[in-house]
Amino acid sequence: MVKVAVVGASGYTGVELIRLLDAHPDVEISCVTSRQNAGEEISSVFPSLLSRIPLVCDPVDVDIIVDKADFVFTALPHKSAMEVVPDFLAAGKKVVDLSADYRLRNKEVYEHWYQEHTSPDLLAEAVYGLPEIYRDRIGDARLTANPGCYPTSVALALTPLIRSGLIDCSTLVVDSKSGTSGAGRSAKTGSLFCEVNEGFHAYGVGAHRHTPEIEQTLSDLAGEDVVISFTPHLLPVNRGILSTCYATLRKPVSTARLLSVFRDHYSREPFVRVHAEGSLPNVAYVRGSNFCDLGMVSDSRTGRVIVVSVIDNLIKGAAGQAVQNMNLMLGMKEATGLTALPVFP
Amino acid sequence: MVKVAVVGASGYTGVELIRLLDAHPDVEISCVTSRQNAGEEISSVFPSLLSRIPLVCDPVDVDIIVDKADFVFTALPHKSAMEVVPDFLAAGKKVVDLSADYRLRNKEVYEHWYQEHTSPDLLAEAVYGLPEIYRDRIGDARLTANPGCYPTSVALALTPLIRSGLIDCSTLVVDSKSGTSGAGRSAKTGSLFCEVNEGFHAYGVGAHRHTPEIEQTLSDLAGEDVVISFTPHLLPVNRGILSTCYATLRKPVSTARLLSVFRDHYSREPFVRVHAEGSLPNVAYVRGSNFCDLGMVSDSRTGRVIVVSVIDNLIKGAAGQAVQNMNLMLGMKEATGLTALPVFP
Amino acid sequence: MVKVAVVGASGYTGVELIRLLDAHPDVEISCVTSRQNAGEEISSVFPSLLSRIPLVCDPVDVDIIVDKADFVFTALPHKSAMEVVPDFLAAGKKVVDLSADYRLRNKEVYEHWYQEHTSPDLLAEAVYGLPEIYRDRIGDARLTANPGCYPTSVALALTPLIRSGLIDCSTLVVDSKSGTSGAGRSAKTGSLFCEVNEGFHAYGVGAHRHTPEIEQTLSDLAGEDVVISFTPHLLPVNRGILSTCYATLRKPVSTARLLSVFRDHYSREPFVRVHAEGSLPNVAYVRGSNFCDLGMVSDSRTGRVIVVSVIDNLIKGAAGQAVQNMNLMLGMKEATGLTALPVFP
Amino acid sequence: MVKVAVVGASGYTGVELIRLLDAHPDVEISCVTSRQNAGEEISSVFPSLLSRIPLVCDPVDVDIIVDKADFVFTALPHKSAMEVVPDFLAAGKKVVDLSADYRLRNKEVYEHWYQEHTSPDLLAEAVYGLPEIYRDRIGDARLTANPGCYPTSVALALTPLIRSGLIDCSTLVVDSKSGTSGAGRSAKTGSLFCEVNEGFHAYGVGAHRHTPEIEQTLSDLAGEDVVISFTPHLLPVNRGILSTCYATLRKPVSTARLLSVFRDHYSREPFVRVHAEGSLPNVAYVRGSNFCDLGMVSDSRTGRVIVVSVIDNLIKGAAGQAVQNMNLMLGMKEATGLTALPVFP
Repeated sequence: MVKVAVVGASGYTGVELIRLLDAHPDVEISCVTSRQNAGEEISSVFPSLLSRIPLVCDPVDVDIIVDKADFVFTALPHKSAMEVVPDFLAAGKKVVDLSADYRLRNKEVYEHWYQEHTSPDLLAEAVYGLPEIYRDRIGDARLTANPGCYPTSVALALTPLIRSGLIDCSTLVVDSKSGTSGAGRSAKTGSLFCEVNEGFHAYGVGAHRHTPEIEQTLSDLAGEDVVISFTPHLLPVNRGILSTCYATLRKPVSTARLLSVFRDHYSREPFVRVHAEGSLPNVAYVRGSNFCDLGMVSDSRTGRVIVVSVIDNLIKGAAGQAVQNMNLMLGMKEATGLTALPVFP
Repeated sequence: MVKVAVVGASGYTGVELIRLLDAHPDVEISCVTSRQNAGEEISSVFPSLLSRIPLVCDPVDVDIIVDKADFVFTALPHKSAMEVVPDFLAAGKKVVDLSADYRLRNKEVYEHWYQEHTSPDLLAEAVYGLPEIYRDRIGDARLTANPGCYPTSVALALTPLIRSGLIDCSTLVVDSKSGTSGAGRSAKTGSLFCEVNEGFHAYGVGAHRHTPEIEQTLSDLAGEDVVISFTPHLLPVNRGILSTCYATLRKPVSTARLLSVFRDHYSREPFVRVHAEGSLPNVAYVRGSNFCDLGMVSDSRTGRVIVVSVIDNLIKGAAGQAVQNMNLMLGMKEATGLTALPVFP
Repeated sequence: MVKVAVVGASGYTGVELIRLLDAHPDVEISCVTSRQNAGEEISSVFPSLLSRIPLVCDPVDVDIIVDKADFVFTALPHKSAMEVVPDFLAAGKKVVDLSADYRLRNKEVYEHWYQEHTSPDLLAEAVYGLPEIYRDRIGDARLTANPGCYPTSVALALTPLIRSGLIDCSTLVVDSKSGTSGAGRSAKTGSLFCEVNEGFHAYGVGAHRHTPEIEQTLSDLAGEDVVISFTPHLLPVNRGILSTCYATLRKPVSTARLLSVFRDHYSREPFVRVHAEGSLPNVAYVRGSNFCDLGMVSDSRTGRVIVVSVIDNLIKGAAGQAVQNMNLMLGMKEATGLTALPVFP
Repeated sequence: MVKVAVVGASGYTGVELIRLLDAHPDVEISCVTSRQNAGEEISSVFPSLLSRIPLVCDPVDVDIIVDKADFVFTALPHKSAMEVVPDFLAAGKKVVDLSADYRLRNKEVYEHWYQEHTSPDLLAEAVYGLPEIYRDRIGDARLTANPGCYPTSVALALTPLIRSGLIDCSTLVVDSKSGTSGAGRSAKTGSLFCEVNEGFHAYGVGAHRHTPEIEQTLSDLAGEDVVISFTPHLLPVNRGILSTCYATLRKPVSTARLLSVFRDHYSREPFVRVHAEGSLPNVAYVRGSNFCDLGMVSDSRTGRVIVVSVIDNLIKGAAGQAVQNMNLMLGMKEATGLTALPVFP
């Protein structure tokens, strides 16, 4: 049993890590931390854990964590993460960081979209933790930068199209919609039930911080700089991201042919499912699971392909992918602890 | 007091027409019809009307309706509408038809996307009831074809951009999201609470029947054939449509300049509101009202403009716009009965 | 046109008052205040008001308010209200106070459930603003204490039963469920979308502050001290309260007979609607309106009557009832500005 | 590996059985049936099962089922269940029946609330499958009648109170609220998203079919006939039942003492959790799990105790309890396959 710590356990990603790790046969949660709830039982913060997770929250203290755990998940806000991640590595621990701090390889790009980077030396070492693209490197990593929720949904939707050279990457438009757990658990007026329920709006248009992260991956795939239009929206559901991706095809390709390209590309992936022609994914069909479902249509009227991808933003978009990365980093079977079917309805 | 009939009162658009007409000072609802609820009190179908709307549903019988009313709203499914609309006109009544039957001027286009048209002679006469574009013609119309909900949200978002020549119309991508009342009140598995709640999905990709209707209006505005990518999605809210529209700018234009173009264009419109720079509309801010709210961003990284529009699909997208058209057709003040503020939260 | 002030305009009750008063033909909103948003346009706080309510928020400054308005609505938290209400009265203004500060006639009871009362002298003068019970006194009042949302729903459900002597008041159990707008607009973790959505829980069991308010009214009606079990629950909807009230009948009475008692009792009330036998109210059927809908069943198996009442907590439970009280206090027709039908769906 | 059949797989309980059984280490789903979807892949009915459950729906044909499976779950509507259950038993299979057909021991009571019973001889043999009360008998059963969702939530809330003799059973009032999946997956207007969302209402007041089932269990516990007031309500959430139970205490008992009675009573139960004083359960904290959470308050003002219980209606209220019963009937560890933590948020 590997002892693991969940650093930043009082957010939605934290509690989801606890839920998934509790079901994992080969690890044991030995430490959970929380700045604001230090000293409290984690099951009083999240009564869903009652009677099953008897841990008390530690403060975010590196010595305590290093002492208690062999593997560390940092589920902290960006900036807070890079204040502690170097220490965990220095102490010989492996880390999956769920913040944005080590996702962008280019320090200048990071500092343009976020703020000063205080451990830029690790940027070259950190591996971007999207197994479907970077699996081999993750297995050897000490530090994995767990991808953002939107970037995961977009990269999986577009990889086969870019790799196959079927689309003109200068025409990419990505319209994404995220459930509200993506906004975190801090008490903000904009996240109140009455503000979100029965509402829907776009935000961060042309300026969302996941844009450079998406572009970094797509540029890797394309072998050239890719610039996209990315518009996120806030969806009145707890969980789920749906990304609708538009691109102009270089030449006419039928929907059936596109589906075949996708099925071939993902034939050995345990967590990517491709819908049949005429069927489109729904965030409700992946809720509670680590799946990414894909569906698509080739629109001959406009010469565009429309790919729709869905994930559970807290699982394949965060905690589930983090466990998948841990499995790879520890040499375990990649799908261990992640095989639960979606919870529908 | 003008006597009006609501033909097809047992759907969501029907009950919304009743609600709005009840608040209208210059009309009286003298007849409501329903195939499946004929003989029942409309307030037993919709208890929201209890104690206030003492009408019993008539069957959809032209003689009865013609006898009872001077002005007719047909809120029937397409195909059913064109079975009765010609009779109302023949009897000297004015009609606002809320179905799709008279929206497309070209019979072939209609028959390609729907089915055979049984009163094609009226297609030339019917006026497309989007007052912000076709106001002058509506005032003289006997038959107004009330626009679809998606087409209303898209046309209002794009009119100033197309009229001003700022965008390349061949690059238009429209990603729309509609509340579930748009799917109507018939009992279908896909509209069940547990299927829609906590879910989100695209549908009719590349094939939705509102596509030709949107293209007809945009082509009118552009003076050339416009073809768009249009993707609707089902939103787990009762009411509201949000359309996110992407287009490549012919040359760089700032967000401030775009907003100024929009404000000038809509300066005298009672129901179009343009958000300030940095603010974006939300379906929650128009719920229960006839407003269309617009916001936008010019994205210099990609050279695209993103315009976001929101309406209440049952009001500006259906019943409210129908009343607005009636007001114009009867020479009343256009905003009469439609001045209620949005219901928030 | 009477000039009215909405003191405390940045909460959900505040914006609902603005919406209703904007539709009122005989008043003009001349002043809105907000501590945290002073100096901002109220339409930037609530974009639903865009283009229609051009007011800037004043601070909560008695001199400014007294100068601008003839009639004052105080929509402040309890304790804050009694800091300013005496000043408005002293300046000769009439006031509807929507806080709890003047609802309880007994200072000791108030101080037991809330905190010290700083203007106890007004407790005797203030009239409890439930028109269906205290209408005559409201007409003469300078200060009306607008009832709480739960107490309104419960009092209207039980008045005919108590007045008619049909029930044993010692057996009253009231199980109430409220939409989340009742929790206000302040940013608390417990009011976040992800905490409320797909959730449901009881709170304040045996200890909710509306209990003494309900008991005060029921005791008035019964002519003896009434003590009840009252359990509120948080409902994942924006608006609406449903109270399910249980009482043992003194002797067997049929449902039909009970309905007849209720219909007689409320025959001249514009805002109380009694459902037919076999039909029960739904919060969805009163949303956006000032109605209270009632339904009931006499259960011969247990000898109990179950009465179900629903209101929109922001309207009949707050802003709408406040306007109803204002109408009475100003000698206007009681239903003025409050005749809009419910917004369904 | 025991081969199990899910008869009636196209409803919400069916798909939940599949989800839970798929995670069970010692069984294999060898047969799924559906009247309306016979011949279709179950993963096309429920795309949540895509790529993981490769079964095609069989018709409800006893021979096929008996041939393919050793253990049968019947998730059929009442009446349909008793048409096939006797055949499965005759073929030597063990059965958990999730319908109401074998829950009531008294044929006359069944026929009063439902309709004629066609296999009344099995009523005496069938064991009511609430392990926390009838565990011993379930282990020996051929046929277990899986309890209704409401009855499970109520029985677990009241068992310690009745067993301990602390309450007057003639005063029981049970106010329950259920998520919409409890209404099933058939296409009815009343289950449409727009009818349920933002709505809340009581139904079946004094007449719900779960009433005699609850009373049968409570009478067993009390050793005398217990009659209750039971009022169900429809909650706009997918999953979850909360029951608020009121009873008069025979003598004053503190909340702390009550909690201690409950903790003792349930100390060895894997699926019942008792909240600490001051904390109350929420349906959100059990969603996706087999837990029943309990909280309570002793109200000295009224002499009543209020117990609140929550379950996931599809799990502890249906499929999860069915698997728990199967485990007992097959001599497996009772909690096998049921240890997943709740999915929050």
